[in-house]
Amino acid sequence: MSSPFPPLPLPCEASRVAAIARQARLTKPPGSLGRLERVAIDIAAWQATDRPEVRPCRALIFAADHPVAAAGVSPYPQAVTRAMVRNFLTGGAAAAVMAHHLRVHLDVIDVGVDGGTVAPACPESTPHPRPRAADGSPPAAATYTRAAVADTREADVRRADAMTHDVFAAAIAAGARAVHALPADTRCVILGEMGIGNSLLAAAVTSALCGVPAEAATGPGTGAVGTCFERKLAAVREATARVATSDPLDVLRRVGGRELAALAGAAAEALSRRVVVVADGFIACAALAPLVAVEPAARAGILFAHRGREPGHGILLDWLGVSPLVSLEMALGEATGALAAMPLLDLACATHNRMATFTEAGVPDAVE
Amino acid sequence: MSSPFPPLPLPCEASRVAAIARQARLTKPPGSLGRLERVAIDIAAWQATDRPEVRPCRALIFAADHPVAAAGVSPYPQAVTRAMVRNFLTGGAAAAVMAHHLRVHLDVIDVGVDGGTVAPACPESTPHPRPRAADGSPPAAATYTRAAVADTREADVRRADAMTHDVFAAAIAAGARAVHALPADTRCVILGEMGIGNSLLAAAVTSALCGVPAEAATGPGTGAVGTCFERKLAAVREATARVATSDPLDVLRRVGGRELAALAGAAAEALSRRVVVVADGFIACAALAPLVAVEPAARAGILFAHRGREPGHGILLDWLGVSPLVSLEMALGEATGALAAMPLLDLACATHNRMATFTEAGVPDAVE
Repeated sequence: MSSPFPPLPLPCEASRVAAIARQARLTKPPGSLGRLERVAIDIAAWQATDRPEVRPCRALIFAADHPVAAAGVSPYPQAVTRAMVRNFLTGGAAAAVMAHHLRVHLDVIDVGVDGGTVAPACPESTPHPRPRAADGSPPAAATYTRAAVADTREADVRRADAMTHDVFAAAIAAGARAVHALPADTRCVILGEMGIGNSLLAAAVTSALCGVPAEAATGPGTGAVGTCFERKLAAVREATARVATSDPLDVLRRVGGRELAALAGAAAEALSRRVVVVADGFIACAALAPLVAVEPAARAGILFAHRGREPGHGILLDWLGVSPLVSLEMALGEATGALAAMPLLDLACATHNRMATFTEAGVPDAVE
Repeated sequence: MSSPFPPLPLPCEASRVAAIARQARLTKPPGSLGRLERVAIDIAAWQATDRPEVRPCRALIFAADHPVAAAGVSPYPQAVTRAMVRNFLTGGAAAAVMAHHLRVHLDVIDVGVDGGTVAPACPESTPHPRPRAADGSPPAAATYTRAAVADTREADVRRADAMTHDVFAAAIAAGARAVHALPADTRCVILGEMGIGNSLLAAAVTSALCGVPAEAATGPGTGAVGTCFERKLAAVREATARVATSDPLDVLRRVGGRELAALAGAAAEALSRRVVVVADGFIACAALAPLVAVEPAARAGILFAHRGREPGHGILLDWLGVSPLVSLEMALGEATGALAAMPLLDLACATHNRMATFTEAGVPDAVE
């Protein structure tokens, strides 16, 4: 499959060298801020700047439903996808609370939620009005967009390719358009997803892409146990048995889903603009791993936020050769793992940009 | 040694049960926020509340100098302690930048910086004016207090007990007074330190308290290598060889330092008020471990923020049986590790208190 992605830049090595040199002049022993230093340097290199910044930041959640969800592979009914989109918009979901607390605008992009447009609920009419910030400031905004690809159909991955070539291309384009629509000064994009059944799809992608058995890549997701888990595992086996391809993007098309394809499209579009991408959990990583496989330059611009509880997540992170910032035993998706890591990126940039040097502060440096 | 600490409460089990029940009703699969859920529950239990909160929050940095620093056991000259106190106050230090970004008031308590009162520098006269927040808000405040104990003397731990019983008691009392002076609505106290040479003292405390050899407990600290490290290790050996006591507080008195004793006093005072304590890195843990040893109830109210790079830090955390929230390969102290974890506590409380329940949001719950 030819690449549907825009050309990606490489990190700027001059900016990396300058960032390393600045870190060495700041009033602390060299390297003593650990991962915070390295992530600031990585962001500076990706943004080709001497002032790494992750603000303004936007969190994008791509949502879709999947035919395989009807097969009883999740403890939650499929209607939860739709209900959770409303919950993002009305402020009650974990991602909404976290984005609000962090002053990150939340964009929910519907790339295939069953039942048509999810009318944004009026905050006043809901039993859970959107919270105000602790300092009394009004709620951070959240927006909802239904992409054209939402009205296409996916197939049940047990029996057929999830997406035709056209639907796959449209889903990637929907992701790219969502990034294109962001304010031009956006420096960082958090990528997450919602879709009942999509941890099954992520497990199938992981199994096919990384060459691991279905049972290694499949976890409980939202809590599948017993016969529910057995059905889920059987579905992953059927999906991966059907697919024999070494083309990473074709894996994504055949056993993925529209929100996964959109995530890959959004990431590529952001990276092409030197915007830093913060990848959420298992499903987001399953969506971005095929992108990295075909566009290795992408890895340098993606910050893998957290190591979650789902076994396939660890397989993907190891396959990508990346070490996430935090490991909090999370397993929710919906951008929450990336949002949890976001303050560390803020602190990495703040210390890099604002700390005093030894000279500025008049602090004696180490004796050689 | 009889306990110099106030009586400590136990976690409120009714609040814990209520917090666990609330987490189960929130719109997410049970347990899917991982450590964030558990820390919110722990805070609710410690604060005996159905609404865990870590704001208002204060960061306390206790600073002191030590005679052993003259023995060439750190790559930095002893004058750095004093210079860094100024750097905290003028906003250029990592802790100052982080506290400012997180809107946490920084209290610097001088419990023994050589050379007398560190006059707070006028921001306008320094080459590094205190930064304004990204949104243009004025700098968060920082305050400086010189405690009476600062004018006492410590002994060189290689040759004599660091503190007399009187100095030790005064240092503990200075820590308690710093907490007593905080606004009554303070819900969370971050505890850090500054003092050239104090990673040597922390290594000696760790070795004596946990019964591990000096070479296991001693690391590079701010970057001691080669002969500097050899001198440091020899000093830890001399200090611990001199001490043969199984009394944890006497270990702290004999091979610790005034800022370590003050940290223990501050923690105990905060915990006695059901204020949550966030412990910074190696040196803070070496100060709080003796407190936990004599007052086991303390452990439930202390959140161990991070696992740092210093080998003794890991020994202490394992000895305490705690698993910190983040592991960022930091090795700076100065409250920076605790400040890095602070946003996760904010997010834990925000999700616990503000997420919608399944009923409130009209989201279908899992099918049993």
